[in-house]
Amino acid sequence: MPKTIKKIAVLTSGGDSPGMNAAIRSVVRTCAYHNVECVGVYRGYEGLIDGEFEVLDARSVKGIINKGGTFLKSARSKEFRTVEGRKKAYENIVKAEIDGLVVIGGDGSFTGAMIFNQEFDFPVMGIPGTIDNDIVGTSHTLGFDTALNTVVDAIDKIRDTASSHNRLFFVEVMGRDVGHIALNVGIAGGAEEILIPEEDLGLERLVDSLNRSRKSGKSSSIVVVAEGDKIGKNIFELKDYVDENMEGYDVRVSVLGHMQRGGAPSCFDRVLASRMGVKAVESLLEGKSNYMVGLINNIMELTPLENAIKGKTKINLELLRVSDIMST
Amino acid sequence: MPKTIKKIAVLTSGGDSPGMNAAIRSVVRTCAYHNVECVGVYRGYEGLIDGEFEVLDARSVKGIINKGGTFLKSARSKEFRTVEGRKKAYENIVKAEIDGLVVIGGDGSFTGAMIFNQEFDFPVMGIPGTIDNDIVGTSHTLGFDTALNTVVDAIDKIRDTASSHNRLFFVEVMGRDVGHIALNVGIAGGAEEILIPEEDLGLERLVDSLNRSRKSGKSSSIVVVAEGDKIGKNIFELKDYVDENMEGYDVRVSVLGHMQRGGAPSCFDRVLASRMGVKAVESLLEGKSNYMVGLINNIMELTPLENAIKGKTKINLELLRVSDIMST
Amino acid sequence: MPKTIKKIAVLTSGGDSPGMNAAIRSVVRTCAYHNVECVGVYRGYEGLIDGEFEVLDARSVKGIINKGGTFLKSARSKEFRTVEGRKKAYENIVKAEIDGLVVIGGDGSFTGAMIFNQEFDFPVMGIPGTIDNDIVGTSHTLGFDTALNTVVDAIDKIRDTASSHNRLFFVEVMGRDVGHIALNVGIAGGAEEILIPEEDLGLERLVDSLNRSRKSGKSSSIVVVAEGDKIGKNIFELKDYVDENMEGYDVRVSVLGHMQRGGAPSCFDRVLASRMGVKAVESLLEGKSNYMVGLINNIMELTPLENAIKGKTKINLELLRVSDIMST
Amino acid sequence: MPKTIKKIAVLTSGGDSPGMNAAIRSVVRTCAYHNVECVGVYRGYEGLIDGEFEVLDARSVKGIINKGGTFLKSARSKEFRTVEGRKKAYENIVKAEIDGLVVIGGDGSFTGAMIFNQEFDFPVMGIPGTIDNDIVGTSHTLGFDTALNTVVDAIDKIRDTASSHNRLFFVEVMGRDVGHIALNVGIAGGAEEILIPEEDLGLERLVDSLNRSRKSGKSSSIVVVAEGDKIGKNIFELKDYVDENMEGYDVRVSVLGHMQRGGAPSCFDRVLASRMGVKAVESLLEGKSNYMVGLINNIMELTPLENAIKGKTKINLELLRVSDIMST
Repeated sequence: MPKTIKKIAVLTSGGDSPGMNAAIRSVVRTCAYHNVECVGVYRGYEGLIDGEFEVLDARSVKGIINKGGTFLKSARSKEFRTVEGRKKAYENIVKAEIDGLVVIGGDGSFTGAMIFNQEFDFPVMGIPGTIDNDIVGTSHTLGFDTALNTVVDAIDKIRDTASSHNRLFFVEVMGRDVGHIALNVGIAGGAEEILIPEEDLGLERLVDSLNRSRKSGKSSSIVVVAEGDKIGKNIFELKDYVDENMEGYDVRVSVLGHMQRGGAPSCFDRVLASRMGVKAVESLLEGKSNYMVGLINNIMELTPLENAIKGKTKINLELLRVSDIMST
Repeated sequence: MPKTIKKIAVLTSGGDSPGMNAAIRSVVRTCAYHNVECVGVYRGYEGLIDGEFEVLDARSVKGIINKGGTFLKSARSKEFRTVEGRKKAYENIVKAEIDGLVVIGGDGSFTGAMIFNQEFDFPVMGIPGTIDNDIVGTSHTLGFDTALNTVVDAIDKIRDTASSHNRLFFVEVMGRDVGHIALNVGIAGGAEEILIPEEDLGLERLVDSLNRSRKSGKSSSIVVVAEGDKIGKNIFELKDYVDENMEGYDVRVSVLGHMQRGGAPSCFDRVLASRMGVKAVESLLEGKSNYMVGLINNIMELTPLENAIKGKTKINLELLRVSDIMST
Repeated sequence: MPKTIKKIAVLTSGGDSPGMNAAIRSVVRTCAYHNVECVGVYRGYEGLIDGEFEVLDARSVKGIINKGGTFLKSARSKEFRTVEGRKKAYENIVKAEIDGLVVIGGDGSFTGAMIFNQEFDFPVMGIPGTIDNDIVGTSHTLGFDTALNTVVDAIDKIRDTASSHNRLFFVEVMGRDVGHIALNVGIAGGAEEILIPEEDLGLERLVDSLNRSRKSGKSSSIVVVAEGDKIGKNIFELKDYVDENMEGYDVRVSVLGHMQRGGAPSCFDRVLASRMGVKAVESLLEGKSNYMVGLINNIMELTPLENAIKGKTKINLELLRVSDIMST
Repeated sequence: MPKTIKKIAVLTSGGDSPGMNAAIRSVVRTCAYHNVECVGVYRGYEGLIDGEFEVLDARSVKGIINKGGTFLKSARSKEFRTVEGRKKAYENIVKAEIDGLVVIGGDGSFTGAMIFNQEFDFPVMGIPGTIDNDIVGTSHTLGFDTALNTVVDAIDKIRDTASSHNRLFFVEVMGRDVGHIALNVGIAGGAEEILIPEEDLGLERLVDSLNRSRKSGKSSSIVVVAEGDKIGKNIFELKDYVDENMEGYDVRVSVLGHMQRGGAPSCFDRVLASRMGVKAVESLLEGKSNYMVGLINNIMELTPLENAIKGKTKINLELLRVSDIMST
């Protein structure tokens, strides 16, 4: 029989994403609603090891639902990858009389949580927070929707200057292993081509496509490139290749970088964060452990952490096709 | 055997919503992709009756994916509700050799399309465009996501001033018959209470809730009220009631109004619009008629127009509960 | 000889405006830079009377430069208008060993500061914070620029729906006594007419102008109305008048309300706030008192509070003319 | 006696900036107001040489006041730097019966205009459009204010992630020769240090400053670097230098790039554009030539093109000092 949960800790880990603050707020308020104590842990697993805890009540989290980043701060912890590190963390948890842990982060963070659970039989629950949308068990990770809007807004601005000068822009967006951001913003930003890690369309197809679009009367173009695109050339090399192999194009590069991670979360991400926090806390209270909460067909569901970690999200082929048709 | 479709017309009808331009663009480009001619009809069914047509090719719709409103303009047509009106429309369609019609609009527009289909056996396809998200057969109508972000942004601004002055604000948002906007923005905006057309919580509960939140240490509050909230009092009467029945509150009202309909569509709405346009045109080309395209579990699906019109969307009870917990 | 200033208090008073937090931050950091202690006073003069003080150091004000509203909160204090109230305030100031006071607010707040200075010979310095830009001695009050952008953004959204439906919108913006906001956003929002408190163009001219613009081919129109417009009719009466006196217009009203006060301050307002805070603190340290800091020809200048209060800003007639020409 | 002006041409030249469309609109409507014909020239001086003209009336420019970029498109013309090129341009102008030319652009564009005026005694008038604010004769160039807001918004987002991870970010902003953007956004974005082309503070001071700020308790920092900063190291070399010479810093680089040029113009830039267009056209109608219109102490003034080109704007030393104090 599971121990009754009287105190829950929450931490954010790995790369930050918009909506993490909203998720912390939800965890804290759901605890308050159920008369369970809540403790915030600073700097992810680092703070767990160092005992950087702070008691949080419903009022501690006011005014943060619309703030980007995470006020608990995040970090990648090397020490937590060691048995010693995790032991220290567990001792702090025991000392603080914490009965369950909510981890907001990506798959690296979930791996840590799963091992911690296995070693100490300690209840853990994951909330998928990353802009990359690369976690199985949820149609949307926290921050993905906001990042899409941030990137599209930047592409809209770039298009203003691209079309004023009849230029071709290569715009690099986040996504080392997955093309979800690139594919969505490519469609929404009216991109000519979208280069993603999942597909290798080849440099010639790119040149063909650009030539075709020029002939069809387009005077400026945007090509969206995911960081980890399969062609594998750095975006500046892509520019050079096009400069050399295509006439009359004035090519520019824009690497959007870290601004993609920040900003006030969208309505969708705030609602999602609120739902996920409720589900995570209430699942712990029901005695569940070692799951990730997620949105599946617009319903809050649990997925074993193991599946969430091992799985690999797939690109939506319908979107690839829509993108092709839209660049007619 | 269905007639081969060689020319498709597209119109926007009813209240405009962000993403309509992106949907028109998608219809036009999908036609171009399939070598089908495309004709834009101005001012909805009015333009069908008056023969205000314009041939649109892939280049005609450049630079509009990020524009709010609809460049084809929209209108509510009384004449199209008459047999004579529809007959004129049909004659124009025959004269222009149009073989299929895509209608972007809400349920009123779909009713018109369905009757038109019945009377003339003319192929029609609907794209649900309305910020209210009140149409069965799609988890999201076009414009809903954008409107949510617009409203949340406004509520964030109102909260700045509310919390600077320890004030209580009643904020009226769109939704005459449905509370989808109110419920989502209420959660995302950190509202104390959310008054929607689907539920009558009663004035006393509102006062109780506000008193409780004040005791819990909240110094300012936002109450989100859908236009058609069930309590049925005008938002200014609500203010008066609270002024009279609660001490020490400085109450203000803000009616957000038509700005909720405008603005550049969100990434989500642009992608949705692109997908819907493809699905609508390709369904017509496949010989289908009298359906609405929609998003169901993140897949493009068809729903008979009749079902879309007769059905009534339901409020997500999980969200109601999350809202309660969040205002702890 | 003025007493050496070792401790400075800062408060925000009256209606809040974007940039107040940035100004508080600047006051606090300028104090830290000069090794002067700084004390924040909550809820304006109310907090001065109630002794709600908090010591602020350079780190206390991190992360607020981009936040709307005022974390010190603001209030209008009736008690401070009495001799007894001000005496209590002075006693608290003496007890806390405060040597100077920076008041961020509008003319009402400055009147209080001036009387307080006269009664107790206590050094005060004003920073003009109000979105209305109605204070003599500065070309821009703090928050004015941000409010302009907020309103223009809302009008852009309204125009999306106005032009989709060929509608006429009356949009009410803030400005009970002055038309600065209305005039600027009217030009920037492409308004057909602008109704301001300083000018009475008469209802007939409005109707004439609308008729003319319709004839010239405009299908939709925006009329910007300041709260205190000289025609003196409530905006809903204006709508009724046009409904009755003009044919074929579909007229709507939008009252923008309190969202105009909130939001992240613009770059201009953040820089202005930073400059004003430096100037206010350093002027106190130089032994000056009873002035307001302001921007005159892009240089920080001091204006006696008395002049700031008594003066009345004038509408820029060039802008009125530009507005007329633009609505050609 | 100057020839009566009956037809005016307008073009945009050089790098585009937000507000150019609003300025074109103003030129066109001011012409319409004075019953003067107006002709738009595409692609700057290139279009003048190629005769790419289009007659523009008041309705041609509707719906563009809020659009970034320039619908007339811009270009840098090599041919216009030759006598032959300018002769062709003049012949086209004579053929089209154009009597005056408004050039919207930067100093390179004005040099072309001035030479053209000298060679053919043809009336020209300049409107300063560039985000860099590097033109003498106006306190604000068109687009500067918008670019500041765009950059500050991006820095706010970067700060979200910087402070979540206790990171140091070098953010590169536009400004090859001038630090106006860097200085303003540095203050508004709460930057630790600002590196500009006008000042060489030396690498050691940078390291000292960062060390000091860390000791004072700051956990994350932003350093704003203008493209042409005097230290002269590429921003990635700066990162390497700090990586090598400072312990415990997690340093990242973000190059904002071309998105800084785009976006809907701010209220300020729209009003400025409207005022400048009126002044430019009316000055031509008054028989003036070879001037640039500009904002001086908030009044529209004329400056000889020669002075505008030769002069060099100076950095505001007060802002440098404010920046120092704010990073306390």
